[in-house]
Amino acid sequence: MSAGPIRFSEAAHTALRPATAARITGGFWAARRRVNAEVSVPQGPDRLERAGNLANLRAAAGAEAAQSGFRGDFPFQDSDVHKWLEAASWQLADGGEGPAEEELSRQVERLAGLVAAAQAEDGYLQTYYQLGPDARRWAEPHWGHELYCAGHLLQAAVAHHRATGRDELLTVAVRCADLVDARFGPGKDETVCGHPEIETALVELYRETGERRYLELAGHFVDRRGRGSLGDGPPEGSPGPRPGAPYWQDHVPVREATAVAGHAVRQLYLLAGAADVAAETGDTGLRDALVRLWEDMAATKTYLTGGVGSRHELESFGDAYELPPDRAYAETCAAIAAIHFGWRMALLTGEARYSDLVERTLFNGFASGVSLDGERWLYVNPLHVRQDDEHRKAATGDQNAHRTPWFRCACCPPNVMRLLASLPHYMASGDTEGLQLHQYASGSYEAGGGAVRVGTGYPWEGRIAVVVDAAPRDADWTLSLRIPHWARTYEATVGGEPVAERAENGWLRLRRRWRPGETVVLSLPLDPRLTRPDPRVDGVRGCAAIERGPLVYCLEWPDQPAGLRLDDIALAPGATLRAEHRPELLGGVTVITSRALCRTVARDGWWPYRDGGADSRGGAGGADVGSGGEADGAEVPEPVRVTAIPYYAWANREPGAMRVWLPVQDPPG
Amino acid sequence: MSAGPIRFSEAAHTALRPATAARITGGFWAARRRVNAEVSVPQGPDRLERAGNLANLRAAAGAEAAQSGFRGDFPFQDSDVHKWLEAASWQLADGGEGPAEEELSRQVERLAGLVAAAQAEDGYLQTYYQLGPDARRWAEPHWGHELYCAGHLLQAAVAHHRATGRDELLTVAVRCADLVDARFGPGKDETVCGHPEIETALVELYRETGERRYLELAGHFVDRRGRGSLGDGPPEGSPGPRPGAPYWQDHVPVREATAVAGHAVRQLYLLAGAADVAAETGDTGLRDALVRLWEDMAATKTYLTGGVGSRHELESFGDAYELPPDRAYAETCAAIAAIHFGWRMALLTGEARYSDLVERTLFNGFASGVSLDGERWLYVNPLHVRQDDEHRKAATGDQNAHRTPWFRCACCPPNVMRLLASLPHYMASGDTEGLQLHQYASGSYEAGGGAVRVGTGYPWEGRIAVVVDAAPRDADWTLSLRIPHWARTYEATVGGEPVAERAENGWLRLRRRWRPGETVVLSLPLDPRLTRPDPRVDGVRGCAAIERGPLVYCLEWPDQPAGLRLDDIALAPGATLRAEHRPELLGGVTVITSRALCRTVARDGWWPYRDGGADSRGGAGGADVGSGGEADGAEVPEPVRVTAIPYYAWANREPGAMRVWLPVQDPPG
Repeated sequence: MSAGPIRFSEAAHTALRPATAARITGGFWAARRRVNAEVSVPQGPDRLERAGNLANLRAAAGAEAAQSGFRGDFPFQDSDVHKWLEAASWQLADGGEGPAEEELSRQVERLAGLVAAAQAEDGYLQTYYQLGPDARRWAEPHWGHELYCAGHLLQAAVAHHRATGRDELLTVAVRCADLVDARFGPGKDETVCGHPEIETALVELYRETGERRYLELAGHFVDRRGRGSLGDGPPEGSPGPRPGAPYWQDHVPVREATAVAGHAVRQLYLLAGAADVAAETGDTGLRDALVRLWEDMAATKTYLTGGVGSRHELESFGDAYELPPDRAYAETCAAIAAIHFGWRMALLTGEARYSDLVERTLFNGFASGVSLDGERWLYVNPLHVRQDDEHRKAATGDQNAHRTPWFRCACCPPNVMRLLASLPHYMASGDTEGLQLHQYASGSYEAGGGAVRVGTGYPWEGRIAVVVDAAPRDADWTLSLRIPHWARTYEATVGGEPVAERAENGWLRLRRRWRPGETVVLSLPLDPRLTRPDPRVDGVRGCAAIERGPLVYCLEWPDQPAGLRLDDIALAPGATLRAEHRPELLGGVTVITSRALCRTVARDGWWPYRDGGADSRGGAGGADVGSGGEADGAEVPEPVRVTAIPYYAWANREPGAMRVWLPVQDPPG
Repeated sequence: MSAGPIRFSEAAHTALRPATAARITGGFWAARRRVNAEVSVPQGPDRLERAGNLANLRAAAGAEAAQSGFRGDFPFQDSDVHKWLEAASWQLADGGEGPAEEELSRQVERLAGLVAAAQAEDGYLQTYYQLGPDARRWAEPHWGHELYCAGHLLQAAVAHHRATGRDELLTVAVRCADLVDARFGPGKDETVCGHPEIETALVELYRETGERRYLELAGHFVDRRGRGSLGDGPPEGSPGPRPGAPYWQDHVPVREATAVAGHAVRQLYLLAGAADVAAETGDTGLRDALVRLWEDMAATKTYLTGGVGSRHELESFGDAYELPPDRAYAETCAAIAAIHFGWRMALLTGEARYSDLVERTLFNGFASGVSLDGERWLYVNPLHVRQDDEHRKAATGDQNAHRTPWFRCACCPPNVMRLLASLPHYMASGDTEGLQLHQYASGSYEAGGGAVRVGTGYPWEGRIAVVVDAAPRDADWTLSLRIPHWARTYEATVGGEPVAERAENGWLRLRRRWRPGETVVLSLPLDPRLTRPDPRVDGVRGCAAIERGPLVYCLEWPDQPAGLRLDDIALAPGATLRAEHRPELLGGVTVITSRALCRTVARDGWWPYRDGGADSRGGAGGADVGSGGEADGAEVPEPVRVTAIPYYAWANREPGAMRVWLPVQDPPG
């Protein structure tokens, strides 16, 4: 069995099942995972020690004087430890052998031991409340994050059990889950947690233990939300803001909702959990709601990078088409949550579009969350940083604006670690017909009764070779390859011969009797392309973005001619985009260069708005609507050559200007 | 002497001085002021009673049991009372006689009495701290707002003294100011208040009492800020956010600052106070800094409506050119603060541009802050509300999104009241040469040794008649008329004869020997016009706005054809804007109609971004930059006729979609 985050029960009602074995052995993601394994994950225990998380556990266990009280600002800080344990467990599941793995294993057992020791007699475990007055336990559902932390504990325990076969942490999780189950449920405490997370964790604990109560409790939490048990927030007189019911998705039950809303991570953790419930129960009403909500998110509230959450205020989804590039919040955790949700929908429905968006999010809005060296993090992933922004950011000390070694609210770093560590799980699936490749990374995948090996230089190269190593000998078997929606065309061969099949709904399904060792080659077109937004996306009207394959590109200041202000750049009509691989740059990236125009705009007086009427041709009472263009007030633009890098690689040099969406200079009219 | 908010000392170093008498007798502002006087101001005491503000004062005075503690959520709530007292005092200064004025006078004395009774023996007065432990007084400079509240008390007392000649409240203010002066200053407590306001108030108290210590203390506060006494916020371990030093302008001293930054109201109250200090001291270094900061604000951080503060997050100025129309915060108080600052700069320098922006802010981003019936308020003044926004807003219970009778944080309503009540003060000024008309409202104005009467239907009509009622008999005297920057042209006559003079730097100066009763007629062109943004204003690229005279227009849903979605509208090339006065609509407004295009965009699949390259003409490795346009993915647009109303009048009907900036449909290419 594969040691991955999702392992459906035998009875689950899903179109696809995750691969039973998956390894990534080379290429883009192997490199990112190596940095994760060699730098990010090993640094975790030290970061957690410095931030006080481990001291809190020791204090709760009585192993350390607790006079100083809880260390840190947030009730959910134990979850950082749980998420690191989950990440490290998936890392161990890779099965490497050597001093590094031995050290990691020691650290895992050490931290798991701290967690176990901190657990109270009755199974309770959250040091924030253990180090404070008992009366506050379970009394602060809005901000307490008790079920949220329990959820991350459960996920860590499942990962630890799957990866190592050991059950110390699983025992802790089961005791915690039983405490939760004893307290919450129909006819018991019917509130829900301010931050969803327990739902998906309980379903996975059910899958791991077979204990159906956990699935039922997950279903209860999914259905209870949206019925006002949280409402707008704590009553008047309590400290803290009243963010409103949508913040924690308490304004409408999931199955009645028509739009994603509120805090993006909360919304998407909830939907991932609901997808798990739907998968195990076969609840089609719930499934239909999830499809509807995913469509709302994808079509109206997702950045080109796959990032979600348009507002800094309350870290929330904005309105439909409210996607400002500069003030994009696009929290790294929200990208991860969108991947969790999307992958569950892909498995539930078998549809390619979900993995299409997962790919986009992985390569862009997620990958940007960690520096190339694995040591620094982004919390917020904007698509536009203005020229002078760096100074302001430095002035405000805004920790979210630049990569930083750790955060006061450190949810994102261990979240990135656990997704990278478990990434092979997201590549392929199987069903009774065969195997589906959702993502393209060199490696080996077993699913649907067969096994394949993939070799590719993707995303830099479009050629993907798939060797069918094993398939049923005496029956047809289907290898399904996902054709990304950005691919204007593609070519596919089996044994060098073009295939007759054509992709339908994003899947190229090759059904035949396979000979072991037979090779499929899929070629995807990697011409750089310009992408235009829906005209309702007000924030990037009149702009285009450069993309190549699954990668979104951006202009970042160090790659441009000296002194060029990115805010003055426009793409030139008729310019050609040229791709060039630069192995020495940013760990090896394909850059895209283009001719552009630099529109130096003189600050003409004190007012930035200009009379745009056509010289009052209409006479008194009328003015002519000019045909537009950006040129008003601009001097004659100067041609320059600009160089775009993949978005995920930005913010790895000195802070400065960056932009994904570029104004397109209108032709002179 | 005029009873207005600013009364320079004899020694002040300013180009201009406010009118010595000013009355608004008819037209647009008279109507708005009548609603203020008849509805808003009289409702104030009841609103303050219901919100607990008056109970707090009674409790602090010991007149009411204080068991329930402080009522309300914010330490600065006394300032709502002070601001209402200031508003009501300016209202009394209008000098009307009748039952309404008598009742208002009684209410003023009643509330002034509550304030006086609440003051402690030592002069301290802030019920939030008086009803809590003594030890907290002066110990929380970041959030305590103690000097902020003191400032509003001082301003109320000055207004009360100027308007009524009574000195009960002035005595309270002097005791408070003396307490502050005893505690703060060089060599004493050198912190500053988290919210500027005391600076401008101390200068005015100096002007009213002649006590120079107050001016010196104001100068001290201006100079101490930006030197880190507040820094990023309270130390670790304290509750509450750490907003960063720019939030309260503690990142750089005013005289070194090059850009407005942080919380918009804090920044602008500070700059108004600094302008008062510069006016009284003749400090040219400070004055130069203020000019620089105003220019930064006007040229890069001001909405078309005059609103400022681009971010909901921390209610702050954003980066230069960060002016999103949908997420504009543009707090009503920030518009008022910008008017306070701008008017002081106009008087300090004599330059017309400051009053130009004041006019824009008054007619648009300020006037929108109160409903036409004077009973409901906007805190936030966006330039774009999406079609579906109303539902979200209703769901979140976001009180800032729609007009509401009062706010939990009720800074804006009494602020609007006090500006409307004192508005005549902002219309005209004088100097040794003559009188300057900054704003055009029917009324009478005395300044610079002369007196004029203005009659006009402005802003609906462009004709402004000015009768010179008094001027020096035996000397030349200058009547200066401000020519707004939006006026493409103008005509002016004296006694029916065109004038020979031409406007320079926004002033048409008519210098001559005047005969009493001589009439000047200024005609400003009121053709509707389209306005284009600087190309660096990313949030409204490709858009234009409709303006007419000083008014910014918007499309609001009730005025459009049934079923039309505003988000699908584009202005049509070649369309003509037509103005039509509609006396029955919204209290009487001139609407502007135009042909437009409705671009119904099918939701084509699940992804809102489209391949915009020219069919990969460039072949492998290259793509052609399309020449753009909005049409991608749009169906053939359908012609419709849209109707724009003045922005100030929006949100007076059922909530729904609104937008100021309209995409301009590119001509078919």
